[in-house]
Amino acid sequence: MNINALTVPEPPGGPYLRVIPLGGCGEIGRNMTVIETNEDLVVVDCGLMFPDEEMYGVDIVINDFTYLREHRDKFRALLVTHGHEDHIGGIPYLLREFNVPVVGTALTIALIKAKSRDHKMIGEANLVTVKPGDRVRYGSIETEFVHINHSVSGACALALRTETGTVFHTGDFKFDQTPIDGRPADFASIARIGDEGVLCMLSDSTNAERPGHTLSERIVGEAFTNVFSHAKGRIIVASFASNVPRIQQVIDHAITFDRKIAFLGRSLTNVVHFASELGYLSVPADRTMRVEEIEELPPEKVVVMTTGSQGEPMSGLTRMSVRDNPRLKIVPGDTVVISATPIPGNEKGVYKTIDNLYRLGAIVVHGTDGRSHVSGHGSQEELLLMLNLVRPEFFVPVHGEYRMLVQHGKLAQRTGVDARSVFVVENGDVLEFTKDYGDKVGKTYGGHVFVDGSGVGDVGEAVLRDRRLLAADGFMMVVVAIDSEEGRLITGPDIISRGVFYMPDAGGVMEELRAELTALIEKVSLEGIRDVNTVKEHVREGLAKAIMARYKRRPVIVPVVMEV
Amino acid sequence: MNINALTVPEPPGGPYLRVIPLGGCGEIGRNMTVIETNEDLVVVDCGLMFPDEEMYGVDIVINDFTYLREHRDKFRALLVTHGHEDHIGGIPYLLREFNVPVVGTALTIALIKAKSRDHKMIGEANLVTVKPGDRVRYGSIETEFVHINHSVSGACALALRTETGTVFHTGDFKFDQTPIDGRPADFASIARIGDEGVLCMLSDSTNAERPGHTLSERIVGEAFTNVFSHAKGRIIVASFASNVPRIQQVIDHAITFDRKIAFLGRSLTNVVHFASELGYLSVPADRTMRVEEIEELPPEKVVVMTTGSQGEPMSGLTRMSVRDNPRLKIVPGDTVVISATPIPGNEKGVYKTIDNLYRLGAIVVHGTDGRSHVSGHGSQEELLLMLNLVRPEFFVPVHGEYRMLVQHGKLAQRTGVDARSVFVVENGDVLEFTKDYGDKVGKTYGGHVFVDGSGVGDVGEAVLRDRRLLAADGFMMVVVAIDSEEGRLITGPDIISRGVFYMPDAGGVMEELRAELTALIEKVSLEGIRDVNTVKEHVREGLAKAIMARYKRRPVIVPVVMEV
Repeated sequence: MNINALTVPEPPGGPYLRVIPLGGCGEIGRNMTVIETNEDLVVVDCGLMFPDEEMYGVDIVINDFTYLREHRDKFRALLVTHGHEDHIGGIPYLLREFNVPVVGTALTIALIKAKSRDHKMIGEANLVTVKPGDRVRYGSIETEFVHINHSVSGACALALRTETGTVFHTGDFKFDQTPIDGRPADFASIARIGDEGVLCMLSDSTNAERPGHTLSERIVGEAFTNVFSHAKGRIIVASFASNVPRIQQVIDHAITFDRKIAFLGRSLTNVVHFASELGYLSVPADRTMRVEEIEELPPEKVVVMTTGSQGEPMSGLTRMSVRDNPRLKIVPGDTVVISATPIPGNEKGVYKTIDNLYRLGAIVVHGTDGRSHVSGHGSQEELLLMLNLVRPEFFVPVHGEYRMLVQHGKLAQRTGVDARSVFVVENGDVLEFTKDYGDKVGKTYGGHVFVDGSGVGDVGEAVLRDRRLLAADGFMMVVVAIDSEEGRLITGPDIISRGVFYMPDAGGVMEELRAELTALIEKVSLEGIRDVNTVKEHVREGLAKAIMARYKRRPVIVPVVMEV
Repeated sequence: MNINALTVPEPPGGPYLRVIPLGGCGEIGRNMTVIETNEDLVVVDCGLMFPDEEMYGVDIVINDFTYLREHRDKFRALLVTHGHEDHIGGIPYLLREFNVPVVGTALTIALIKAKSRDHKMIGEANLVTVKPGDRVRYGSIETEFVHINHSVSGACALALRTETGTVFHTGDFKFDQTPIDGRPADFASIARIGDEGVLCMLSDSTNAERPGHTLSERIVGEAFTNVFSHAKGRIIVASFASNVPRIQQVIDHAITFDRKIAFLGRSLTNVVHFASELGYLSVPADRTMRVEEIEELPPEKVVVMTTGSQGEPMSGLTRMSVRDNPRLKIVPGDTVVISATPIPGNEKGVYKTIDNLYRLGAIVVHGTDGRSHVSGHGSQEELLLMLNLVRPEFFVPVHGEYRMLVQHGKLAQRTGVDARSVFVVENGDVLEFTKDYGDKVGKTYGGHVFVDGSGVGDVGEAVLRDRRLLAADGFMMVVVAIDSEEGRLITGPDIISRGVFYMPDAGGVMEELRAELTALIEKVSLEGIRDVNTVKEHVREGLAKAIMARYKRRPVIVPVVMEV
């Protein structure tokens, strides 16, 4: 069968299991996986992806929920591994259509709730909090939450037990032998689940190209110690708001080096609030201060934590770097620690921020040099360890661009997984498992859905193509009124242009263009052409040619011909 | 004085020397430096920069030549260090305005001539070919060309001797102790020039953040040997067309491993032609073939060299990766070597290409893993060595983003350059030297000039702002005709929209919008408003509000109100 055509065969007779990654395979972000049996369907994660520069005007990218609509009656629950945007960002949109319980650990649920400001849906949703080790049953599918390490607290892998067999989904993970919260991954449970037998494992491929072992979060502490013991002025640390272990390390260093800490930025203060309330974070009240209090302390007594480690335009650090942050101004002597590495695509923004901070006289320590950041994703040695602990019969690398999935698939084979049992799949590929076989049997909707403003899915390729053309060369509009009898010009041509060239300088040219178009329309009229659309076409072509000849540009041209 | 305001003081009495970087300081690309004395002015390099994603529709970015226009009478010559686009790309535009000799080594001149297809100017230009070691005099300024290593052959540093003192400009350089052409940098001349005394040195900062020593080009050979000895099928190598040493290595390996080589792509075939003609490249005729002949050989006998190492949309490799290259189709078993690392900003394009090559079943070796690429720019140890050889009195780090310049400035201080003699400058900063002092005395035009199609400089911030708005949310146009007497609606409102939403789905909404606008115009008419521009404003506001309420989008809105 042609498994590229969009086609999903009828389920086989007898018990079956389907595993369908709807996002996150072949790209970074919008992670989402369907786990389906004869009677029941659960979804693991529902993330968002940030648009690339080709997706003009798109705010976020979410998954296509078509397959879920087609199986609405079986859809029992959404199980969430952890609270990062690429795993929870699509939930508000999912809840608009599906009233299913959303299940995760306390901090994960808190981070989902934090979205309720923007999306009331979530306020009314059925949010179920679990602890690592808990088991929940939805329909015939029992799911065990297993503690693993990641760059956000409360992250879990999931073991989903079905009649056909167990699916083990690692979520995002690393194996940190010396984590800040003192709780390494639950090796015992993972090993036990492996012993019980795992039919299919889905595993995080983000660092599948990286040899060796990802460094422990504790290494960042050493970098911080180095910075804190040398900095003469204020210390400003930028990281991801959700990186609770990182926040804890900054707090701990503030205490050790007798500085007071302030948190700048809504998302960050939210997380600090939730996380400490839930016991993920210990923040001694007497060591913290409000941003307004910073000025009252000498520089060497101040630590500020903020967001903007990715050079996001409106974030705390980025605004500081261009003197646009009313709450904190960078001054010479400040030490800025960017405790993150740029996500592919963000490099330019991050480096621009770093350059601007240098211009303001700050000392800048960034993740790309030194060790002020470590990844939250396991490298090859950890991926191999996970494979050896779980020893799955079938393996599906997920969460990565295509080359990473290929690489991860090769790693699996090195641990003894049969080459034919490794499925390097793309979004929407349908994997089917029964007692007798496991195979890729079809393909369903795994595409992008663009969210622009309040519109979901109404911006597609056609609209983006128009925006691309407009972005490249702007548009020109010609307005003329002709009389319906003889098609003679009555008013106009008026030419309106945006983004084509600098109008004030183009005065002479505009006159020429008007003259040319007037002549053109008269010619068309003399030729006895009356049909408005034909006239329009002539005007469009005429103007396009004239602009191309003069400027080698191709603006979008909109002729408006009115009959009066 | 406020050295940020655009102001250049009168020259001092007596002999002086001015050094003015017009580009390449605080950004990568469009490298250009003015060297000026009482009577004479020469320019070192005239490059281009590729636009970033904010510069919608801009093809290339060149330098602002205003300062040269203001000193046209003193402008004696353009001295070129090497033939990379970021050092020669602006020359055709310079020659439109200034009839000065262009001086460089044979390959540099050849690469400049290669542009003459696109720009006839160059055909008529006075191109002067020099050899490393040659000295040329223009007015009172004598320039010595000094052989150094870089990722293109024929690269030189320049020693410019003036009455006030000597300026040493390294150009782009590395110190390769085992270069492919067997010619390490001319240490003897650099040391001699240092001994004679250098007033001011300008040096390449591209790798100022990189500790240690950049690897020799020969290391790439080892990676190639590894690939060539394992590859069972065809080998396709992508690199920069101008990287002659890299091309030589691929040729040498083709010979050693008994494969025939084909060159794919105009720019590459050009360079191979020039370079072998000029003796920079040795290409045995019997080891090469035309692309058409590839099919006649078994896969294990074929090497293809092509461009596209940066994921450039229309380049050889990128088109292969999406099956869009009519001349060569990737098949499973092909080994693709991307012999380059992504320039910041190109990462996404490069990785997309790699992913697509994997999808086609190719084995991909890329610069980011392994050693299939080494940088052409010196790392910290080489920058320090250059500083110790030249021992300048004043130091100006160039060719780099701001943080790199800062880092390079620190390196200079470690070699004993006084902190006050290190000038971390930005484009347009005017440095002035006399017998008594060296200082930053003013600022001139160092900004961008955008080239879009055939237009140079007519696209500015205003046009880009329009393009940005259009890119984000498209535009809507409302056309109405009202009678001049009572301002009553005669025809319309017709609504035309591009890039706002998907029209076919928006039918209902369009009806609503028309109704709202009709009501609005009647209201305006009843209020006795007749002025067309006021009516336009009401229409614009009304529509903007309606769209914002429904879609949370802000298209560019153009109301057209005709009186009839």
